[in-house]
Amino acid sequence: MLNFDFYSPARLIFGRGEETRIGELLKPHADKVLLHYGSGSIRRSGLYDKVTTSLQKAGVAYVELGGVHPNPRLSLVQEGIALCRKEQVGLILAVGGGSVIDSAKAIAMGVYYEGDIWEVYEQDLPISRALPVATILTIPAAGSESSGDSVITNEAKQLKYGYGSSHLRPLLSIMDPELFFTLPASQLANGVADMMSHVFERYFTPTRHTDLTDGLCEATLRTIMKNALLVKADMHNYDAWAELGFAGTVAHNGLVGMGRLQDWACHGMEHELSALYDVAHGAGLAVLTPAWMRYVSPQHQDMFVQFAVNVMGVQASFRDPAALVSEGIGRLYAFFRQLCLPATLTELGIGPERLEEMARKATGAAFGAEEPLGGLQKLYWQDVLKIYQSVQ
Amino acid sequence: MLNFDFYSPARLIFGRGEETRIGELLKPHADKVLLHYGSGSIRRSGLYDKVTTSLQKAGVAYVELGGVHPNPRLSLVQEGIALCRKEQVGLILAVGGGSVIDSAKAIAMGVYYEGDIWEVYEQDLPISRALPVATILTIPAAGSESSGDSVITNEAKQLKYGYGSSHLRPLLSIMDPELFFTLPASQLANGVADMMSHVFERYFTPTRHTDLTDGLCEATLRTIMKNALLVKADMHNYDAWAELGFAGTVAHNGLVGMGRLQDWACHGMEHELSALYDVAHGAGLAVLTPAWMRYVSPQHQDMFVQFAVNVMGVQASFRDPAALVSEGIGRLYAFFRQLCLPATLTELGIGPERLEEMARKATGAAFGAEEPLGGLQKLYWQDVLKIYQSVQ
Repeated sequence: MLNFDFYSPARLIFGRGEETRIGELLKPHADKVLLHYGSGSIRRSGLYDKVTTSLQKAGVAYVELGGVHPNPRLSLVQEGIALCRKEQVGLILAVGGGSVIDSAKAIAMGVYYEGDIWEVYEQDLPISRALPVATILTIPAAGSESSGDSVITNEAKQLKYGYGSSHLRPLLSIMDPELFFTLPASQLANGVADMMSHVFERYFTPTRHTDLTDGLCEATLRTIMKNALLVKADMHNYDAWAELGFAGTVAHNGLVGMGRLQDWACHGMEHELSALYDVAHGAGLAVLTPAWMRYVSPQHQDMFVQFAVNVMGVQASFRDPAALVSEGIGRLYAFFRQLCLPATLTELGIGPERLEEMARKATGAAFGAEEPLGGLQKLYWQDVLKIYQSVQ
Repeated sequence: MLNFDFYSPARLIFGRGEETRIGELLKPHADKVLLHYGSGSIRRSGLYDKVTTSLQKAGVAYVELGGVHPNPRLSLVQEGIALCRKEQVGLILAVGGGSVIDSAKAIAMGVYYEGDIWEVYEQDLPISRALPVATILTIPAAGSESSGDSVITNEAKQLKYGYGSSHLRPLLSIMDPELFFTLPASQLANGVADMMSHVFERYFTPTRHTDLTDGLCEATLRTIMKNALLVKADMHNYDAWAELGFAGTVAHNGLVGMGRLQDWACHGMEHELSALYDVAHGAGLAVLTPAWMRYVSPQHQDMFVQFAVNVMGVQASFRDPAALVSEGIGRLYAFFRQLCLPATLTELGIGPERLEEMARKATGAAFGAEEPLGGLQKLYWQDVLKIYQSVQ
């Protein structure tokens, strides 16, 4: 086990009806908030009314900024920063999925940053403060409700960068599984692929002596897979959504990756797809993850045998580990297919034209400063290209 | 799954040598601290020198209060409160095990409480503030390094009460597994019984649809059992101590019990043993836990079948669940024996004389206000007496 520093202060308020408490929960922290959201879906579902009524009752003033897109954009972030400064907002309330929360975090630190906030993402600059962020989650997937991470797309530059800081950990997040009932099946599927990837990126490690976090990762993955199929069969299954939502938070609050060298190659490879083709992050991960596993597993057979047995439930001969691993990866592939997730770049609308460009961008080779992806196995741009090509 | 509110802000700084950073870590929070510890063992081990050197280097002044006993006492807490007020201390640094940390938390809230701090424990009064507490853990067991709980013994009244508040969650805790190398085998064993009990008290539940936390509990328990035996064989096994230490924190930071009705009958029954006979908490739990399992399992067979299979690794016929459960409990009993833990009250030096008195105190019947123990199964004083008698 490696030395580590675990800090996950975001309070998680979980369960039916909890979103109606948002006003009283925020009042001690701010008299005026920015209500940040995406499309009009929170108006149609009635959530907008519940939230604004609760804020009004508690005497919390608010200004609004809607319009966050999936793969949240820098231009809206910049608009939000200007609005918060002008209106002297004390807290940002993100009502939505990971994109809305990530956009809120970017605004939260941008308010105190004197230059263009994109510099912080591009140059990985340290920040010393940010406005507090609270969230009401409507899509379990990104884990942004507890993490200190934010991913923003610079649409002008066609770049998608992530940034992390403990100052970005939300103050509190409300998760009511009933808010997930009306999600389309595609968002269930994308969310499941995303939260599983958050565990995989931590699980696959060269670090030895990781019993506890191995077990926590495996329990989280099994919970996600079981309950994803229950939700797929009945989108109003409260208990199954509850498991998925809670698991999505545990997948990304940091705990299950402590003391382990982490991987993150799949996220790195996927960000290029999203940046250039605006594909859903989870869909991109569903295509790339089994491909990555096939590419790296021969060099890390013991780790992948453990995955096959403990996560995918393969019962087969340990004397044929390659077959065991192949069956494990095959089951993951089949599980993603069962959720109607894509398995090829073609299905994502991505042709062969820009694969090399994306591979070179993913590792930084395109910018003359290549840093291979991956903690389990280093991937240079040529490796990334092979993985892309393997799922063309 | 039940609605829940999860908040675990204590930062965990984990690994070799991290204790030498304590000064720089505390400096932003306080210019003067109370250094609180137990016996002279931290002087003999050299930890005292490391800590005071680090404080001095960082320019953090300190006053000292040693002498915390296992089952920490109210009288020393009162002394600490007076000292902190007189010296205008801004933070309490607990260097030790759960007893030292619990004592530090009592002092931390006592500084701001106008009456006798025992009233807070006795009447479960709400508090609104406490001094920040930081810890350097020397015994992995109680989980107090992340929890908001404190258990104090009023030696004059022969009462031992617990109290919990989010204001008591430590600011940060340092855990260096090397500090555990010199513990006696009995403290390894007691600590293991205590941390396993923290999971059991949460695991055994009547709540349905608890996939994620079931799995997290089971992974934590398996990790503890595996690594306890590795440490027993080699008290200098860093990696095994690392698993135990980390698992002890996860066992009690609240996560694995979220959304579940919890039990806590074994802790309630054990506190009476400690209060009257000053036995080690973990040793008392090791005696009572299998006895409690035998007493309640017939009414909750499905939960105990899951325990036997998923935690204790029993492979047997599901068509004879009683035998399966019995084998599971028997394996736990044997595991505790392997660690040389006691199995009877007699081994703890407890005769039959005061069993009824303890049973009546445990449920409050002695005070004319009985509240049965146990979330899985309600235990009245007569039940508690039967459990005590079953392990006489």
